[in-house]
Amino acid sequence: MLKLEDYVISIPDFPEPGIIFRDLTGVLDDADAFHEAIDRMCDVTSDLDYDLVVGAESRGFIMGSPIAYRNRKPFVLVRKKGKLPRETISEKYELEYGTAEIEIHKDAIKPGQKVLLVDDLLATGGTLDAAVKLVEQAGGIVAGIVVLIELAGLEGRKKIGDYRVDACIVYPGK
Amino acid sequence: MLKLEDYVISIPDFPEPGIIFRDLTGVLDDADAFHEAIDRMCDVTSDLDYDLVVGAESRGFIMGSPIAYRNRKPFVLVRKKGKLPRETISEKYELEYGTAEIEIHKDAIKPGQKVLLVDDLLATGGTLDAAVKLVEQAGGIVAGIVVLIELAGLEGRKKIGDYRVDACIVYPGK
Repeated sequence: MLKLEDYVISIPDFPEPGIIFRDLTGVLDDADAFHEAIDRMCDVTSDLDYDLVVGAESRGFIMGSPIAYRNRKPFVLVRKKGKLPRETISEKYELEYGTAEIEIHKDAIKPGQKVLLVDDLLATGGTLDAAVKLVEQAGGIVAGIVVLIELAGLEGRKKIGDYRVDACIVYPGK
Repeated sequence: MLKLEDYVISIPDFPEPGIIFRDLTGVLDDADAFHEAIDRMCDVTSDLDYDLVVGAESRGFIMGSPIAYRNRKPFVLVRKKGKLPRETISEKYELEYGTAEIEIHKDAIKPGQKVLLVDDLLATGGTLDAAVKLVEQAGGIVAGIVVLIELAGLEGRKKIGDYRVDACIVYPGK
């Protein structure tokens, strides 16, 4: 079986000293590895019952859109502030320096709809935690969260709280 | 047959007065419309011979990634400046006010590889024209360009030049 870890490129000191950047493009640049990555994210969540897939700009789009396509679900966008043209719900969250704000269309999720939340990477969990809050504010229920890569040492699961999180590749460090 | 046009939401005066924004999220928010949109983008380009799919941040990711997945091709990212962690080639292009700069990893395309370039929308063609230049600088050959929506009145095809462009939905205006 193809070993996805072999396709992740580890780049020391990017974007700043002391950080090892786990570069997903090595997976995307290989047809079989990319296909396998999407299939595996679908496989680990195949027991979940959900109505739609939500992905956050912009790397969440790369993994979320083919999962929605493969499973014939709607694909709902979480975008940076000011990009969505209709009425939105927004959520601020803290970055290392300053804050960021993300939005979802108010009518994109109907009350009670079950959501699979998709991202490329779980690090500190800031973006995913904010995305969970957006889904719930919109009336949705988070059925589960799936990421390709988890940096377990950053304890993102703690930040996100009591939700099921599936990760296909787990690095113990930061 | 499902009429994709019925799912595009037209929003007058966004992001500024006089512009009709063609909002793709109406397509994405419907499972069958989204599936059909991707299938149709694949169908109109099914006679093209290409080695990889290239999509530009961030809405190009939404359409490009499932096309690459469906056709078992690599998915190569064009991103805004500073986001890609390895050695890049970059290209500046003009916006209405100021300039933008996009990048591609230098090693993402091997010389002579044939590329299907994907985006959600062809408007003035600025981003797609810059993406074409990036692909060619990297040694790639543009086999074709496919978009879901074309705003024909903005004459993006002229800007891009002598490449085959397929569009699934064409609006005559701007």
